[in-house]
Amino acid sequence: MNYFSSNFKLGIIGGGQLGKMLLQETRKFDVHTLVLDPSESAPCKIACNEFFVGDLMDFDTVYNFGKRAGVVTIEIENVNVEALEALEKEGIKVYPSSKTLRTIQDKSQQKLFYVDNNIPTAPFSRFAYKDQILTAINNESLSFPFVWKSTRFGYDGYGVKIVKTYSDLDNLTAGECITENLIAFEMELAVIVARSVSGQVATYPVVEMEFHPEANQVEYVICPARISDENAKKAQLIALKTSAAFNHVGLLAVEMFLTKNGDLLVNEVAPRPHNSGHFSIEASITSQYEQHLRAILNFPLGSTKSKAAAVMVNLVGDENYNGPVAYENIEKILSLEGVTPHIYGKKETRPFRKMGHVTIVNQDLTEARKIAEQVKRTIKVIST
Amino acid sequence: MNYFSSNFKLGIIGGGQLGKMLLQETRKFDVHTLVLDPSESAPCKIACNEFFVGDLMDFDTVYNFGKRAGVVTIEIENVNVEALEALEKEGIKVYPSSKTLRTIQDKSQQKLFYVDNNIPTAPFSRFAYKDQILTAINNESLSFPFVWKSTRFGYDGYGVKIVKTYSDLDNLTAGECITENLIAFEMELAVIVARSVSGQVATYPVVEMEFHPEANQVEYVICPARISDENAKKAQLIALKTSAAFNHVGLLAVEMFLTKNGDLLVNEVAPRPHNSGHFSIEASITSQYEQHLRAILNFPLGSTKSKAAAVMVNLVGDENYNGPVAYENIEKILSLEGVTPHIYGKKETRPFRKMGHVTIVNQDLTEARKIAEQVKRTIKVIST
Repeated sequence: MNYFSSNFKLGIIGGGQLGKMLLQETRKFDVHTLVLDPSESAPCKIACNEFFVGDLMDFDTVYNFGKRAGVVTIEIENVNVEALEALEKEGIKVYPSSKTLRTIQDKSQQKLFYVDNNIPTAPFSRFAYKDQILTAINNESLSFPFVWKSTRFGYDGYGVKIVKTYSDLDNLTAGECITENLIAFEMELAVIVARSVSGQVATYPVVEMEFHPEANQVEYVICPARISDENAKKAQLIALKTSAAFNHVGLLAVEMFLTKNGDLLVNEVAPRPHNSGHFSIEASITSQYEQHLRAILNFPLGSTKSKAAAVMVNLVGDENYNGPVAYENIEKILSLEGVTPHIYGKKETRPFRKMGHVTIVNQDLTEARKIAEQVKRTIKVIST
Repeated sequence: MNYFSSNFKLGIIGGGQLGKMLLQETRKFDVHTLVLDPSESAPCKIACNEFFVGDLMDFDTVYNFGKRAGVVTIEIENVNVEALEALEKEGIKVYPSSKTLRTIQDKSQQKLFYVDNNIPTAPFSRFAYKDQILTAINNESLSFPFVWKSTRFGYDGYGVKIVKTYSDLDNLTAGECITENLIAFEMELAVIVARSVSGQVATYPVVEMEFHPEANQVEYVICPARISDENAKKAQLIALKTSAAFNHVGLLAVEMFLTKNGDLLVNEVAPRPHNSGHFSIEASITSQYEQHLRAILNFPLGSTKSKAAAVMVNLVGDENYNGPVAYENIEKILSLEGVTPHIYGKKETRPFRKMGHVTIVNQDLTEARKIAEQVKRTIKVIST
């Protein structure tokens, strides 16, 4: 397929910030791009060739959109899978595949997939509805504390709760769910694997994720993770195994726990460019976005080596502000060494809403981590 | 001024490839952008908020465009200067200033400016029309060989010729021009200086430019230049002096000759992001495009340090092809270490037309230079 021909069109489902960063990379290859998003004011609108507004969960919308493209990819998981399946049947390339997406969309299926493929993951139980949890507690097959996850539509900490007491049960939604043992972990890690149409693979360095204690959102992503070479190798192998098990094409971000007794357990995966790979724009020889394109267009993959150590800071709305956004002290952080801001352009801030991110690169990771803290302390996402 | 407010608008005059790369960086700051270009199909159209079609040399077009913006910048020098002057009088910030642009647009004025400001440059003569050259040769105030430059509208080797014999005179256009002694130079160098509204300055490392022998176009840009630290420091000081003399705001690319006897002479300048700074996208902590924005929006400047050594290869149309473009062997170059392509998306190729560039980064400059040659030998810009 000649991707440089104006006859070739790449369809991206979802027009959010990840899509926008992906679109910027399509310029390097001059690929003609189509984007589908439910919002008329999606970030991608400014950076694609053709923009379509529509419901991503509607069969006809997704199907008709995909029919315009030669290759279809996603920047969000909540997409009508039946439509993707129909597109595949008609010879349109869909990466990730409908099958992969179907498995990943359902946390219960995702967990079963790990078990079936000998991919280490935390023990879990499945429940068709919430009341079954109470029964399980009463007959002692489940005990506090545990992690509750809605099987569908969870993201960024939504649909996930730590349940410590009976009263915590009141805050859970009623539908299908899983529970997992609460893992005593040392650290949360992530590895991004790229796998191309022809099966070439490349793994990025293992990154370490520090979470905000209240919001259950990643606050810092640190590359490389401060772990032993042995653990790093082990984590990369697990990620590669996961990607191969899915027969995946494109990026797969594999999130893991490093437990207190040194085990690595897969927590969840995202089959697309991922927050844990933003650092790669500044720090890697090939950014995750360029790599995703190389993978799905079946070009040779690029080098995943780092040019520098990096720390990524998520910029989230201050917890005390709601309304039209303002970035306090952005000038101050710009005067620090190696700081690149990425303001996403959302007009309104809310407590803990993701409003952007900042990458800090430095030849010395400890120094980068220090500057990251300074960035975090200095910049405030408030309202005017 | 609050650049993050939707009331603030940045106007970019010229909608070409440099503008497009600049626009990508505006996303990091979520700046609202306006672009003016004569072509309905300009590369910038896909990446700005509002796009206007119009003649850049027409007073009313440029003036009316500028009135919509809070800050106006350019990505091409051939712009109606009187309109910029009128905008400045009404309080609109124009970077570079109309005064700087007026001086740079006219090669004769540019040379006089260097002389007035004690900036080293090759000796030259001014001629109001071509026939005066012949008179000068006849009365022995000018002798072969020499360099002829049209005072206006030269770019990429157009409007510049080396004159060795009487018959070479026939190929020159008739209008105002300058002639320069032909400098026996060791190397051509360039330094990009950033200077912010508040006068903060930063210089990028000195780069070395290798020219294509026939097309008089830059073929490789090598960062850092393979010169002594002493010469590098000297070149950076000359560039800083030039930027200060213009009281410049934004980027100034200063091209120089390193002569056989070790002198540095300023050849010409460009008051904007420049081909000699493309390497910075992949290799520098702050890319030249982000730096230009920081400078004109009066943010603190970013670090100009390199994360890796880099070689930039210009991708130009093969001399034997005209027509709809195709990129032969692009897959092969993508399998080489540290290679990032930038395909500009021009639909038609012509001999030596700039169709894109490729950056090669590596911790070892010699290795990067080798891979660059391999890239150059492998990829071919042909027609289908």
